[in-house]
Amino acid sequence: MARTKPRTPPGMRDFAPAELRRRQEVIRRVRTVFERYGYEPIETPSLELFDVLKGKLGEEGEQLLFKVLRRGTPLEQLRLGRTERVTVESYDEVVDYALRYDLTVPFARFLAMNPNLPKPFKRYQIQRVWRADRPQRGRYREFFQCDVDVAGSASMLADAEMIAITIEVLRELGFRSFTTHIGHRKLLEGLVASMGGAPHFKAISVAIDKLDKIGMSGVREELAQRGVPLEVADPLLDALGQTDEVERLLTGYEPQVADVPLGREGIAEVRELFAALAAMGVPAEHYCFDPKLVRGLDYYTGPVYESVVAEPPIGSLSGGGRYDTLIERFTGQSLPATGTTLGLERIIDVMREQEMLPPYRAATQLLVTVFGPDQRDASLALAAELRRAGLRAEIPLKPERGLKPQIAYASQKGIPLLAIVGPDELAAGQVTLRAGPGNQRTVARAAAAAEAREFLRSLA
Amino acid sequence: MARTKPRTPPGMRDFAPAELRRRQEVIRRVRTVFERYGYEPIETPSLELFDVLKGKLGEEGEQLLFKVLRRGTPLEQLRLGRTERVTVESYDEVVDYALRYDLTVPFARFLAMNPNLPKPFKRYQIQRVWRADRPQRGRYREFFQCDVDVAGSASMLADAEMIAITIEVLRELGFRSFTTHIGHRKLLEGLVASMGGAPHFKAISVAIDKLDKIGMSGVREELAQRGVPLEVADPLLDALGQTDEVERLLTGYEPQVADVPLGREGIAEVRELFAALAAMGVPAEHYCFDPKLVRGLDYYTGPVYESVVAEPPIGSLSGGGRYDTLIERFTGQSLPATGTTLGLERIIDVMREQEMLPPYRAATQLLVTVFGPDQRDASLALAAELRRAGLRAEIPLKPERGLKPQIAYASQKGIPLLAIVGPDELAAGQVTLRAGPGNQRTVARAAAAAEAREFLRSLA
Repeated sequence: MARTKPRTPPGMRDFAPAELRRRQEVIRRVRTVFERYGYEPIETPSLELFDVLKGKLGEEGEQLLFKVLRRGTPLEQLRLGRTERVTVESYDEVVDYALRYDLTVPFARFLAMNPNLPKPFKRYQIQRVWRADRPQRGRYREFFQCDVDVAGSASMLADAEMIAITIEVLRELGFRSFTTHIGHRKLLEGLVASMGGAPHFKAISVAIDKLDKIGMSGVREELAQRGVPLEVADPLLDALGQTDEVERLLTGYEPQVADVPLGREGIAEVRELFAALAAMGVPAEHYCFDPKLVRGLDYYTGPVYESVVAEPPIGSLSGGGRYDTLIERFTGQSLPATGTTLGLERIIDVMREQEMLPPYRAATQLLVTVFGPDQRDASLALAAELRRAGLRAEIPLKPERGLKPQIAYASQKGIPLLAIVGPDELAAGQVTLRAGPGNQRTVARAAAAAEAREFLRSLA
Repeated sequence: MARTKPRTPPGMRDFAPAELRRRQEVIRRVRTVFERYGYEPIETPSLELFDVLKGKLGEEGEQLLFKVLRRGTPLEQLRLGRTERVTVESYDEVVDYALRYDLTVPFARFLAMNPNLPKPFKRYQIQRVWRADRPQRGRYREFFQCDVDVAGSASMLADAEMIAITIEVLRELGFRSFTTHIGHRKLLEGLVASMGGAPHFKAISVAIDKLDKIGMSGVREELAQRGVPLEVADPLLDALGQTDEVERLLTGYEPQVADVPLGREGIAEVRELFAALAAMGVPAEHYCFDPKLVRGLDYYTGPVYESVVAEPPIGSLSGGGRYDTLIERFTGQSLPATGTTLGLERIIDVMREQEMLPPYRAATQLLVTVFGPDQRDASLALAAELRRAGLRAEIPLKPERGLKPQIAYASQKGIPLLAIVGPDELAAGQVTLRAGPGNQRTVARAAAAAEAREFLRSLA
């Protein structure tokens, strides 16, 4: 059997216990918040039919799909060395499936295949996705996405809930100085229309979406390049550049969009949304109205939102918005929806850098050492008893090497407590519990589980 | 955008909340047992380099790999319609990666890439694997495997631990009438050698492995067909066919293998293993010595074990064994190991059929209804307060439709409690908690969380 240099595919990672358990703890906290609001998990297959994905992701997205070779094509003959060349005449001949690119398309497909779910349907989904992107620091080819969405509600309460959840998740993870910016596509489109810029709306969105990167003057230039007349660009950027308390901003916009129903709708919805956030008691320091927030994706139809950490300046950790027409594109049935993606990998990276990750703890609470062959059975029995009492207890699986390597193993693995049954303990019906040099207790064998539990509590 | 009939790939499944939560509960119970014995989780990428998998799975296994198309091959031009045919001259041109086929090869690769892990390294891994098998009832093309292994211990304590864990897992899941059969490759090989059948050992293993399916007479026939002399086959089948208490069987085999070191080693190891199981207090009704247990895979080198449910007759739910030379084949470094696979999908299927699955419970504990626009903010505030108190509380996301559809939603989703803040309650500073017709309590608003918790407890 040929030996290959062991490697993982580029941009894809193994998770050893210490890393995995800390990730699992982050995910557990996220899920707890989702479930507190009544969201439930779904999972979909890692592969989707290539036909389902085709035409849904744009050309760029489609390039990044990992496509799976169809079985039984002549290409297999090539592999088996039975032929020297193979001619392929159609892509369908070679590709059946592709690895999931995101969690949105699978969610839309899932909704289409499960029309009888209770509506509004509130789901979260935390699964791997794959993109054949160029791997680089913080960008992986296999990574986790974490989406929470509600399908079947047009109410601003649903959007308010998304924002409340995002803020609660970030707070539970230990983030303090962040702000969720809230914009509204209808208001933006209404403002643009009221200024006579309707034909340029798409170009305007694209330019404004770059505000963070290129600044106001950069956007002004880009608008000019894209042929947006100055009479539109100037007043629009003035209007969007204002910062003030939400109600004053809305009052300011009202006369401007008085004749544009979409704009009026946008204003009413922003009012509703902010009223709901206030009624829910969402901490006001964590959200703000930001009329210039657009968000890149063109499928948003209402409120859009994005959580940004200011200090340290690490950018956005979550983003989402309302997409009332997207699901219809897949299913043919109108189903308003809103939802957000948490940038789980980025969140974990930032938490690691900022030392916010929960400390790694070994699962094992005790190592029951084996003193020698004569004490072996007593140690095995004690370990079994501790487990029956609900403790997580290991026995050494190389007991023949003596106590010293057993203790080294416990320390290397971070096991907090040793339980020692030596000849003296065995004779006296006792057990020595040892947390470290000078920190040990010899207790009655019959009380070992209770004493161990108490000792562990004192160490925590 | 073209609409495609929404489908999942054949043999691959969506998991909606009700199904997923029950699966998660099964997995939680399994993990709890693993961690009680000090095993920790790892995860590996879904894709492995095709070169890593190649030559490791046998031709049949390799046929079943889902292979991933390399990016940037001329095949992409075909897809984009820029060419009408493409000629491929080498398989490497088109394939980089394949989806994980099992959890054993990735574990071996992981060990090779992480030489400094504390040894013995005790890991469990519960992840999806993919096989391009023909889908049929109970056989999926994407399914979960659940492996628990220890690498770096040659001690029979490790094998005993595997057997103890398997039995504990099955008991925790609610299985009662099952037996873990324990065989030993060295003993079998020793017996065969002592009878002069050494050159036929492989053929003998293959034939005996079919015992369950074809019975003793079938095995006898197959041995004859495979050219195993009657002088070997007859006494061997007589010896293996015996059933008795382990020590009596071993004593019986002792004279037979007196001159075969491998056989004597096998006997000594079986003794050690059974002594450890007894010392650990593993319930004796759940395991037995079964000298004719072989297990299909040719890489086992010591004890092999398999848990079989007798009633209903559903076959084996787990299987494993010691494989002291397998990891070396990947890493070049000797690392003795033993481990078991739980047939998670089969276990879940059986549990579903036998109605052993834990009942599905909605995450949500309360729906705080919205009586009308005037009571909306009070409801939002109450829901937020209940959540802060640690309860899982939903608000209706289509409140404009009135109370009736809100109640229907709660009942459809299985939410056990309604919290109602109508005009009367609002005026009186109260909340009505309602579990069903005639089962309701009106409580002080200030005590709502505590009262709700108490009410939920009374319903459980």
